[in-house]
Amino acid sequence: MVVNTTGERIHRVAVELFARKGFHGVGIRELAQHAQLSSASLYHYMGTKEALLAEIMHDCLRRLVSAGREAVASVDDPTERLGRLVALHVLAHAERAQETAVVDNEVNSLSPALRRSVVAARDSYERLWADAIADGRHSGAFRADPDGVARRGLLEMCSGVARWYSSTGPMPLDDLAREYALLALRALGPTEPAAPDVDVCREIVLTTWGAVGSADFA
Amino acid sequence: MVVNTTGERIHRVAVELFARKGFHGVGIRELAQHAQLSSASLYHYMGTKEALLAEIMHDCLRRLVSAGREAVASVDDPTERLGRLVALHVLAHAERAQETAVVDNEVNSLSPALRRSVVAARDSYERLWADAIADGRHSGAFRADPDGVARRGLLEMCSGVARWYSSTGPMPLDDLAREYALLALRALGPTEPAAPDVDVCREIVLTTWGAVGSADFA
Repeated sequence: MVVNTTGERIHRVAVELFARKGFHGVGIRELAQHAQLSSASLYHYMGTKEALLAEIMHDCLRRLVSAGREAVASVDDPTERLGRLVALHVLAHAERAQETAVVDNEVNSLSPALRRSVVAARDSYERLWADAIADGRHSGAFRADPDGVARRGLLEMCSGVARWYSSTGPMPLDDLAREYALLALRALGPTEPAAPDVDVCREIVLTTWGAVGSADFA
Repeated sequence: MVVNTTGERIHRVAVELFARKGFHGVGIRELAQHAQLSSASLYHYMGTKEALLAEIMHDCLRRLVSAGREAVASVDDPTERLGRLVALHVLAHAERAQETAVVDNEVNSLSPALRRSVVAARDSYERLWADAIADGRHSGAFRADPDGVARRGLLEMCSGVARWYSSTGPMPLDDLAREYALLALRALGPTEPAAPDVDVCREIVLTTWGAVGSADFA
């Protein structure tokens, strides 16, 4: 995790540039310029550009895993668990659109060893979804999900929020998170599921991402 | 539409490079090299790199609109219409993952005027989905979709297939398209909807994209 101020600045600048121009579209010199450093100082702080990308992804995935675990920790009902995971994912992808988009778009920019470690971290996160879906299947609340097709589809649906959500849009974000949760729950089974507790998800997102860029956190 | 061989080669090379490295990550010299042209010849054929990107997007969106219209042309039932649109979208995004990913990822790389024209083309396509959903709402088959939230979520779910689908995966593509259609239809209303006619969608995709790269079309 990035803790010092210069490291934090590099991290933020890189997230913004990678999200806007893609990993391959950002040069070292441009990174250094935006971070107000010489290229030599930048190297000192970040190692390679690829290591910086992997660090950004691991930081984001660590937060997603931790937030997801917290959201479902004391919840037995699989419908409420999956509903919370969906709402949390939507909130995080709307509020932290740049870093989540970097995680979603740039996995193939990593070389095999770094890619494996990022994919393993992503798998840990997706396992929270898979467990909720499997438990809902056992309890009779959800349909079967052969090959995790529904899980993957619903994850993509929710991650897409990072691409289009704008805080100036007509629907408040918490309502959007609730709507997405209901869409996902209906797709998996219950005809009229109860909406999950979005307030608790909102709290968890604020706590989890509070340390980074809390000033620009709407 | 690209018709001559050199133009077609540039188009294909650009799709592949933009999809893999992002628009900003691909230089003119690299494009020329991969298309086996001098930079001067490349300019002759393509104009600016941005014009080439817009041309790729318009070509893909024109095919999607035409395929979508064909899929729903003679169908009255909104459930079958939306089911076919979903299946078609999944098939196209799996089979033409690179060009559809370029459309989905690079809209913000365009300057305002070109972006407006691409967004207008995308709106024409999404209107097919919106009309099917609205008609299903009127007929009582679907729930209301305030602010198009479900439409947008389901489009993102299906577009995501371009990011992860592999023809070596466990589920045949036509089954995947059918599963996605059922997920979408359940999310919008009917508890146990009928699967759409995926065969007809498969035919339309083959006809629509047959002219480009039919050799590498699985």
